[in-house]
Amino acid sequence: MKIALAQLNYHIGNFELNTQRIIENINLAKAKGADLVVFAELAICGYPPRDFLEFTDFILLCEEAAQQVAKHCVDIACIIGLPIKNDILEGKDLYNAAYFIENGKVKVVTKKALLPTYDVFDEYRYFEPNTQFECIEFKGKKIALTICEDLWNINDNPLYVSCPMDELIKQSPDVMINIAASPFNYRHDEDRIQVLADNARKYNLPLFYVNQVGAQTEIIFDGGSLVFDETGEVKAEMKYFEEDLQVFDLDEIQNVKNKYPAAERASDISQIHDALIMGIQDYFKKSGFSKAVLGLSGGIDSAIVCALACRALGAENVMAVLMPSKYSSDHSIKDALDLVNATGCKHEIIAIKEAATAFDSMLAKPFTGLEHNLTEENIQARCRGIVLMAMSNKFGYILLNTSNKSECAVGYGTLYGDMCGAIGVIGDVYKTQIFELARYINKDGEVIPENTIVKPPSAELRPDQKDSDSLPDYGVLDQILFQHIELQKGSKAIIAQGFDEALVHRVLKMVNQAEFKRYQTPPILRVSPKAFGMGRRMPIVGKYMA
Amino acid sequence: MKIALAQLNYHIGNFELNTQRIIENINLAKAKGADLVVFAELAICGYPPRDFLEFTDFILLCEEAAQQVAKHCVDIACIIGLPIKNDILEGKDLYNAAYFIENGKVKVVTKKALLPTYDVFDEYRYFEPNTQFECIEFKGKKIALTICEDLWNINDNPLYVSCPMDELIKQSPDVMINIAASPFNYRHDEDRIQVLADNARKYNLPLFYVNQVGAQTEIIFDGGSLVFDETGEVKAEMKYFEEDLQVFDLDEIQNVKNKYPAAERASDISQIHDALIMGIQDYFKKSGFSKAVLGLSGGIDSAIVCALACRALGAENVMAVLMPSKYSSDHSIKDALDLVNATGCKHEIIAIKEAATAFDSMLAKPFTGLEHNLTEENIQARCRGIVLMAMSNKFGYILLNTSNKSECAVGYGTLYGDMCGAIGVIGDVYKTQIFELARYINKDGEVIPENTIVKPPSAELRPDQKDSDSLPDYGVLDQILFQHIELQKGSKAIIAQGFDEALVHRVLKMVNQAEFKRYQTPPILRVSPKAFGMGRRMPIVGKYMA
Repeated sequence: MKIALAQLNYHIGNFELNTQRIIENINLAKAKGADLVVFAELAICGYPPRDFLEFTDFILLCEEAAQQVAKHCVDIACIIGLPIKNDILEGKDLYNAAYFIENGKVKVVTKKALLPTYDVFDEYRYFEPNTQFECIEFKGKKIALTICEDLWNINDNPLYVSCPMDELIKQSPDVMINIAASPFNYRHDEDRIQVLADNARKYNLPLFYVNQVGAQTEIIFDGGSLVFDETGEVKAEMKYFEEDLQVFDLDEIQNVKNKYPAAERASDISQIHDALIMGIQDYFKKSGFSKAVLGLSGGIDSAIVCALACRALGAENVMAVLMPSKYSSDHSIKDALDLVNATGCKHEIIAIKEAATAFDSMLAKPFTGLEHNLTEENIQARCRGIVLMAMSNKFGYILLNTSNKSECAVGYGTLYGDMCGAIGVIGDVYKTQIFELARYINKDGEVIPENTIVKPPSAELRPDQKDSDSLPDYGVLDQILFQHIELQKGSKAIIAQGFDEALVHRVLKMVNQAEFKRYQTPPILRVSPKAFGMGRRMPIVGKYMA
Repeated sequence: MKIALAQLNYHIGNFELNTQRIIENINLAKAKGADLVVFAELAICGYPPRDFLEFTDFILLCEEAAQQVAKHCVDIACIIGLPIKNDILEGKDLYNAAYFIENGKVKVVTKKALLPTYDVFDEYRYFEPNTQFECIEFKGKKIALTICEDLWNINDNPLYVSCPMDELIKQSPDVMINIAASPFNYRHDEDRIQVLADNARKYNLPLFYVNQVGAQTEIIFDGGSLVFDETGEVKAEMKYFEEDLQVFDLDEIQNVKNKYPAAERASDISQIHDALIMGIQDYFKKSGFSKAVLGLSGGIDSAIVCALACRALGAENVMAVLMPSKYSSDHSIKDALDLVNATGCKHEIIAIKEAATAFDSMLAKPFTGLEHNLTEENIQARCRGIVLMAMSNKFGYILLNTSNKSECAVGYGTLYGDMCGAIGVIGDVYKTQIFELARYINKDGEVIPENTIVKPPSAELRPDQKDSDSLPDYGVLDQILFQHIELQKGSKAIIAQGFDEALVHRVLKMVNQAEFKRYQTPPILRVSPKAFGMGRRMPIVGKYMA
C-alpha cells in the first residue's frame, strides 16, 4: 500500500482555496501512484478555526467542502480532518473528526478523543471527546487512525486518563496514521519525534504522521511530517516551513532513508528565523496585503524586523521610517541608513520634534510647574506611533511591531507608541536571542550593521538614556524571565536557583504589572513554548506577584 | 440546621484580603447562630484565577489560606471553594474543589465534575473533572454539595454527558448546596433562577445557592444568592451588586418570604447600570487607583461614561478632557460643559489643532499631492489619545475608554485613538441601549444633557460628519449585530429573518474585518451574554465572512 502524506498550508475559513489545494494534491498523489493520500487535522477549514466553529453555517460549509473533495477520491482513498456535528443530544455539539473516503464516499468517520485545552489550545471549548474506537480496513490492511493529541498522552505525567491507541491496538492494526495540526516552537521538533517514536515502539507499529505548514496569524506550523518504522526509527522527515507531498510504500519503509539525520537538525535560531519569515509572509498573504511599514531607530530590534520583512516580502515592499528626536544620537540615523542600504528597502526620514513641541505647548497649562518625566518620553514614542499609523493608513502598508519578548515581559515599552502594529514579529524572542538572530541573519554577509549589534541598547527618549538604567542586564533578566514565563516558576523557586532575591521580586512584579499593556498589544508570532497572547492568560487586576 | 450564605467580593490572588474577609464572615455567621457558613466557588483565590493556576506556588498559597480559615471553623462548620492538587498521575494536575471544614479540620473534599469551557470560561484548561460523588453528613442531615456548573446540565441540549446530582441523589440527601462563581449578564438572573428551580423540583430537595459579587477586570458577579424549597419556589434572594450574609433555618425555609418577587425584578437597563458602576469601582479599587480621566466630546457615549464614573468614583475623582478640533460643532463644547456642571467633575479644555497641524507639516513630503482622507481623521483621534494618555501618565489617572458595542463591532473607531484606555466601560452596550441608559441615568433629574441625547451621533472628524454617513441606522445595525454576535447567526440565517441581503453581508464583513482592532482594545466590562474579549475568540487572518 502506497501512502501519500500531503503537508499543506491552509487558510482558516477559506474553503475555496483549501478545497482547491486539497483536490490538486489528491490528483498529484494519484499521479505518483498512491493508494491513499493523507491530509492534516481540520485541513478542510484550517487550524485553529476558534469561534468560527460556533456558527452552524461554518460547519455546513465544512461538510460541503468535504463532499466536494470526496468526488475526487476515485482510484485513490483519502483521509482528511474536519469538524463534524455530534448527533447525540448530550455533550458538546461537535467532534474534531477525520473522514476516510473511498470511491467517492465517506466510509469511516474517526473522532478525536484527547482534546488539548492548554496554552494556545481550546479544543474542549468546542468538541466532545470520542469514546469509541474502530480501525479502518483498506486494501487488506488495518489502519489505526488517530488525530494529533490522541498520541500525546505518553509521558510521565499524562494529561488524560486514557490512551486511544490502547483501545485501537486490541483490533491488531497493521499501521498507525496520525493527522496533526501541531504548532511550531523551537523545541517542538525534538519533542514531536520523541513522542511519536515512543508510540511506534510501544505499539510495535509503523507510524505515518502528517502536519500542517504555514502561519495562521500568530500560530506557525512548521510541517516536518514523519514516517517511523515499528522500532521507532525515523524513516522519513518531510520539509520544514514548506509545503510538501511525499509517497511511501508501507511494505518498503525499511528502505527509505531519512534526509535529515538528527546530527544535522537545524539550530533553534535558524528555525526561529525561518518561522518568523513564514509568519510575516502568511500574515500578509492571508490578509490580502503586500507592503509593510516599520519604524527604524538604528537599534537592533527594528533592524532585525526590517531585515526579516525584506526577506519575507521583498525589499521593494518594505518602507522603513526613521523618526529622529532631539535625543537621538548621531549614530542612530547612520546605523539605520546603513541597514536601509544593506537591505535595499524604501525609507523616509520624518523628525518628530514638531509634534512633540506641539504637545508640550498644548499641555503647558495642565502641566504648569511639573518636571519633564516619563510622560514626555511616552509622548515622543506615541508621536512616532501616529506617524507610522498615518503612513499605514495613507498607503495601505501594514505596520510591523518591533518589540522584543524581554521588553514585552517587563512592560518596557509605550502603549500606543512603540507597542503599535498589526503583528508582533519578534515579541516571542528574548533580547539575548535577538543578538543571536542578528548574527544568524549576517551569516552570509553583513545586513544588520555591526554597530547596531555592539552598541548598548537604548530607547533614546531622554539624553544618554540606556536600557540598563531601568532594566537589569539582559543576560540575567532573560534567565529570570525564562524561569517565570516558560517554566512557570514563582519567586521562591527562582530564588532557590541562586538569583538575587530583590531582583527576582522586582522582575516578577514588573511582569505582572505589565499585563494591562500586553492585553492591548498586537498578536505575536509564536516561536517559543510559551508566548505572550492566547497561550498565556493572566488576570489583569489580580494581586498574586503584583 | 442553620445555614449562612456568605456572598463576598473577592480579589483574585489577594490571599491576605480574601482570608481576612472570609474569617470576618465566619465570625459574623457564628454570631448570628449559624451551624454552617457557605462561601462561593474558588472563594479562597477569587474567580477566575486563569493561568495563576499554573504556578505550583499559587496552589500552595491557596492551601495555606484554607488552613488559616480552617482554624476559625470552631463551633461552626464551613464550606469553601478552592483549587486543589490532583494526586493521581493521570489527568490534569488540579481539581476545582470545595472543603467541608468542621472542628477546625477539613472533613470532606468535594470536586467539580462539569467544567465550563465556553464563552469566558476555561475550566478544562486547568481542572480534571470529578467522577466520584459522596454526600456530606452534618448534624444528622445529608448535604449534596455541588459546584456551580454541576447543576447546569439541565436543559434540552445538555453540554455534558452526565449529571452529578443523578449520582448524589442515590445517597438520599436532605438538602442541596451549590457554591458558584456565576458571572452577570443582563439575562442571567432569570436563567439562574430557572435552572436552579428546575434542579430543586427534579430532585425534590431544598437548594441553597451562594454566588460571588464584585468585578474581576471585565467579569462582573452580581451576587443574588438564592434559597429554594423542594418545589422550586424561590424562598430567598440575596442582595444584587453588594456583599451580603444571611442565615436560614433549613427546617423553616417555608416561612421565609422572598423580598424580590419576580414582578419587581430590576429592569435589564437598571442591572446594566449597576453592573457598570461596580465594574468601574472594582477595577480602580483592586488595581490600587482612585482617579479617572476620559475624553468628553459632547456626544452621548463619553457623557454616559463620565456620568457613570462620577457615580462610581465620586465626581472629584473624575477629570473630563474636552479636546475640540476645527471640525467640532458649536454645541459640542456646550453640551460637554453642561455635563461637567451637572456631574461636578473636573475638566480641562485642550484643543488639538496645534498637534494636528504639526503632523500635517511633518507628513507633507510623503503625502505630497494626496487628498486629505481617513488618515487625517485618524490623526486627530490619535492626537486626542496622546493628550489623554499624557494626562494619565502625568497625574496617575486611569483612562476610561468610551467606545460602545456597535462601534466596536463594526470597527468604527480609531485604534490608538478613541480606542485607547485601561478599561472599556460601555463596550458591551449597543448604541440603542446607550440611549436607554442615558434616560435611566436621568430618571431622577437631568445629568446627561438633553441635546446630547437627541442630536444625531457624529465623530466630528470632518465637516458635518454624521455616523449615518458611514453606518446603517443604529436601530437596524444593532439588530443585525445582536443576531450575529449574541446568537451566532451567519448571513443566511439573518437574511432569512427579512433583513436586507446586501446590508447583512456588509455588516458581517465589517464585524469580521475589525477583529484586528478588537484584539488590541482594552478589556470591556461584560454585561451581555456575549461580550467582545475573552469570551469571543475569532481568527484574525481568517477568511470566513470577511
